[in-house]
Amino acid sequence: MRTVSVALVGFGNVGKAFVRLLARKQEDIRQRYDLDIRITGIATRRHGTVITPEGMDLQVLLDRIQRGSDLNGLSPYPVPEDTFTFIQKVPADVLVEITPVNYETGEPALTHIRMALQRGMHAVTANKGPVVHGYQELQALAREQGRAFFFESTVMDGAPIFSLFREALPGVKVTGLEGILNSTTNLILTRMETHGESLDEAVAYAQSIGIAETDPSGDIDGWDAAIKVAALVTVLMGHPLKPQDVQREGIRHLTPEDIHRAREEGRRWKLVCRAYWENGSLVARVAPEKVASHSPLYSVMGTSSLLRLETDVLGDLSIREDDPSPETTAYGLLADILNAVRART
Amino acid sequence: MRTVSVALVGFGNVGKAFVRLLARKQEDIRQRYDLDIRITGIATRRHGTVITPEGMDLQVLLDRIQRGSDLNGLSPYPVPEDTFTFIQKVPADVLVEITPVNYETGEPALTHIRMALQRGMHAVTANKGPVVHGYQELQALAREQGRAFFFESTVMDGAPIFSLFREALPGVKVTGLEGILNSTTNLILTRMETHGESLDEAVAYAQSIGIAETDPSGDIDGWDAAIKVAALVTVLMGHPLKPQDVQREGIRHLTPEDIHRAREEGRRWKLVCRAYWENGSLVARVAPEKVASHSPLYSVMGTSSLLRLETDVLGDLSIREDDPSPETTAYGLLADILNAVRART
Repeated sequence: MRTVSVALVGFGNVGKAFVRLLARKQEDIRQRYDLDIRITGIATRRHGTVITPEGMDLQVLLDRIQRGSDLNGLSPYPVPEDTFTFIQKVPADVLVEITPVNYETGEPALTHIRMALQRGMHAVTANKGPVVHGYQELQALAREQGRAFFFESTVMDGAPIFSLFREALPGVKVTGLEGILNSTTNLILTRMETHGESLDEAVAYAQSIGIAETDPSGDIDGWDAAIKVAALVTVLMGHPLKPQDVQREGIRHLTPEDIHRAREEGRRWKLVCRAYWENGSLVARVAPEKVASHSPLYSVMGTSSLLRLETDVLGDLSIREDDPSPETTAYGLLADILNAVRART
Repeated sequence: MRTVSVALVGFGNVGKAFVRLLARKQEDIRQRYDLDIRITGIATRRHGTVITPEGMDLQVLLDRIQRGSDLNGLSPYPVPEDTFTFIQKVPADVLVEITPVNYETGEPALTHIRMALQRGMHAVTANKGPVVHGYQELQALAREQGRAFFFESTVMDGAPIFSLFREALPGVKVTGLEGILNSTTNLILTRMETHGESLDEAVAYAQSIGIAETDPSGDIDGWDAAIKVAALVTVLMGHPLKPQDVQREGIRHLTPEDIHRAREEGRRWKLVCRAYWENGSLVARVAPEKVASHSPLYSVMGTSSLLRLETDVLGDLSIREDDPSPETTAYGLLADILNAVRART
């Protein structure tokens, strides 16, 4: 049995879901892959830091999570004061980077991942920042170090998008893409349609169930969708793109009347992401569109999402995820870890 | 540059599309994967057999295909008289098995693949027979030989289903599935809805464009869908299942009136495949269902197809393929070859 030591930087909802998922899957992974995945460190900015070279007792960790307590006092050794020193010191094969995203610079996640790869660790992240601000550099560094830089959970939670392209579609050229990639706005549009709510009412509902943030503008104005488009175009279409390069229009101006009129035409308003080549230039945009019923996007409701790829050898290929949860994102991280460390089957 | 020699047994539409695709992609594959894929042999039952250890000139082969001539006279050496001797003699790293399917026994494809693996070749097939009649045996043999037995093109043409599960979804348990997996019946139901055709008229249309066979009963009575369900359950759900074990009801009894009435309810008749666990038993069936508009199946029209997987860690995951062509199936074979021979990235 091979031991795989994992260190986490950041420990919010996704980190906690990751611990729960690992506790549930640990035995299965031992049996199927002969891998013993352990958590040897967790660093947070305000809730303490812990390093346990022999691996943490996940049950103790789950109890702490359950009680809402921080990580202080868990560490048998003195712990570094900042995340950078933590990454230098923690004994781990894989760094899981799950700090909050910074759209403009990708920091500090970018530095965290660079440091981990330089130390010879695999780096796995749910953070879109380092992908749009450092993909080429980090990918080259990973290759040089013989390590993996994977980020499945950055788009469509844990649904396999990047790994599908990387592992299951050899020789394919992605020539264009479209999708519904922001769950919050899709839930809002669904509520406006099915419950006749105004935008503000639908936002309040999305906030009440923990989907929308206190300041929902990152979702509503299309920033989250734009950064996902930038990540997809950069990685799948091989064309480096910044979120600022994505034409962006949010859903703020849509009224219940707009929604209603579209329904009368047998259509639905959706916040649609698109990227395609036009006269040798790449066009990328996020904007509301009235989608017709024959489109795969039409039946994507609530927090579900869909990505359609146009390729040079397959008919159009769509991946759709229904009813994701924080555990779905956690699964993306676990899949990245397994894909990084297991041999090709 | 590593040379990969490929031998084909069977040379119908898919084989011809494979040669066209390889000619188009050969240079790209050399550059991206440092692999030189060559065809060193083709065996057919009635159209000749050829062995060229140094690799065939694909242009000469394409010209022959274009002219509709057979393979006789192409071989610089005397050629074996039967496919079994061909597989024993042909100098190849990979066997591509694309003979017509035999639903009851899986032969002769099963024997072809067994012989190829025993000789130390990778085996790749678009033939569902060996999957439902020999998966466990062939998989074990492949593992023992350190070779691959891949069959992406058996379900949903070349769309990544088995490779997705194998390469991109580590640690996932598939607990159930549903889908539209037979293009011919879906096209027939689409024509009945959109053109008001009777079943017979829609069948005639599907035959006229080369989608339905002269005897369409394999599609219409649900056999093709049932064998696909058996393959998916066997491989993805780890539960060996024969096509005969799938409850099966075709679309023969559906009338234009049925289709019309469903539309009035906002629904559509689809030939739906399902597999799930119920009280510890696996239930698998193929039957027409009236699908509601919120289902991912609803907007799958014409020859498009969709597979939805229920798993233990992801929300429901669907893969949809729109507008496949024979080249799509050929791509599945090429992807299998590349996945068999390239190292994990």
